Amino acid sequence: MLPKSLQDTIDALGLLPGVGPRTAERYAYYLFRSDEKIAKSLIDSLEKLHSGVKLCPVTFALIDSSEEVSPLYSDPTRDKSTVLVVEEPLDIFALEQTKAYKGTYHVLGGAISPIDGITADKLHIKELEERIKKDHVSEVIIATNPSVEGESTALLLQKMLSELSVPSLKVTRLARGLPLGVDLSYADQITLSAALENRTDL
Amino acid sequence: MLPKSLQDTIDALGLLPGVGPRTAERYAYYLFRSDEKIAKSLIDSLEKLHSGVKLCPVTFALIDSSEEVSPLYSDPTRDKSTVLVVEEPLDIFALEQTKAYKGTYHVLGGAISPIDGITADKLHIKELEERIKKDHVSEVIIATNPSVEGESTALLLQKMLSELSVPSLKVTRLARGLPLGVDLSYADQITLSAALENRTDL
Repeated sequence: MLPKSLQDTIDALGLLPGVGPRTAERYAYYLFRSDEKIAKSLIDSLEKLHSGVKLCPVTFALIDSSEEVSPLYSDPTRDKSTVLVVEEPLDIFALEQTKAYKGTYHVLGGAISPIDGITADKLHIKELEERIKKDHVSEVIIATNPSVEGESTALLLQKMLSELSVPSLKVTRLARGLPLGVDLSYADQITLSAALENRTDL
Repeated sequence: MLPKSLQDTIDALGLLPGVGPRTAERYAYYLFRSDEKIAKSLIDSLEKLHSGVKLCPVTFALIDSSEEVSPLYSDPTRDKSTVLVVEEPLDIFALEQTKAYKGTYHVLGGAISPIDGITADKLHIKELEERIKKDHVSEVIIATNPSVEGESTALLLQKMLSELSVPSLKVTRLARGLPLGVDLSYADQITLSAALENRTDL
């Protein structure tokens, strides 16, 4: 029914996460109607995407292909004895924007989810353990997502790290509490319980 | 902060309608993480998008560049004396899926919206008037969107067509009424009034 080139673009865009046929149609039609430069810039960036980006071999963050390791690790002003553990590389981006953290990062590459075939050995836990020994890490901050998978991963990590027999190692995790801008009466029970339990001195 | 190639892809995807920075990040990261073939299929389709698709010079529907006019117009089994007028080319796609219409189409290329600089002379109304005379059209079905802009466009079209002095020309528009699957108590007042006014014999 639709011209083949348009249908091909709709099909390709429809593979993106959360994009259904109507959204893909809208995107493709927009790209067709707008200046050819917009489609061109997308083509150019996609052509360099796989060749220009790689995973840091130490922290598993996303880095430029021209770099050896993540600048957030090689930077001498960053404290290598503190490692913040996240599920995905983009989590680092969100944390860096706070400008509140000066240690280094470690990306697990997901969270444990047996139903999706993601078991502990698929995550970069062994590499984290190696880093703890090599860099004389004194604190591991677990920052997995507050989901069932993220919580299970945090528990497993805590167990594995305690078995490492590094007595000076402290394992912490991000605080649970009320997020800014959410009315108390709208907060869920678990968040409220955590906020109450972890209350701070004023 | 992010690798340049990834940031470029995020920026390019962020130009799509309704895509904010977080969604663009998600799309770009998905394209990086998944098989290179997915990005390749998107590149290939985008490269052919502008060269492979054009507007039909008669109906302004989207057609393959290899075609002269829309197959929905050139097809001899389609009734050229009935013209259904829509705002955008993709509206044709939605109507064709019903398989309930055997006439031809005419795309206006938008709806009147002075605030966006879309005035009557930017729409393909003159071409519609030419078709009415050339193809001896007996009925024009107006199928603009039920929005303020769509309704204004429908009114203007009706006025312009009545001034054409083609006495046999009938101008109709799609029925307003209850959509399937919507509970009566959830329908808005205007839709309900229209449904009541246009009630049909049972």
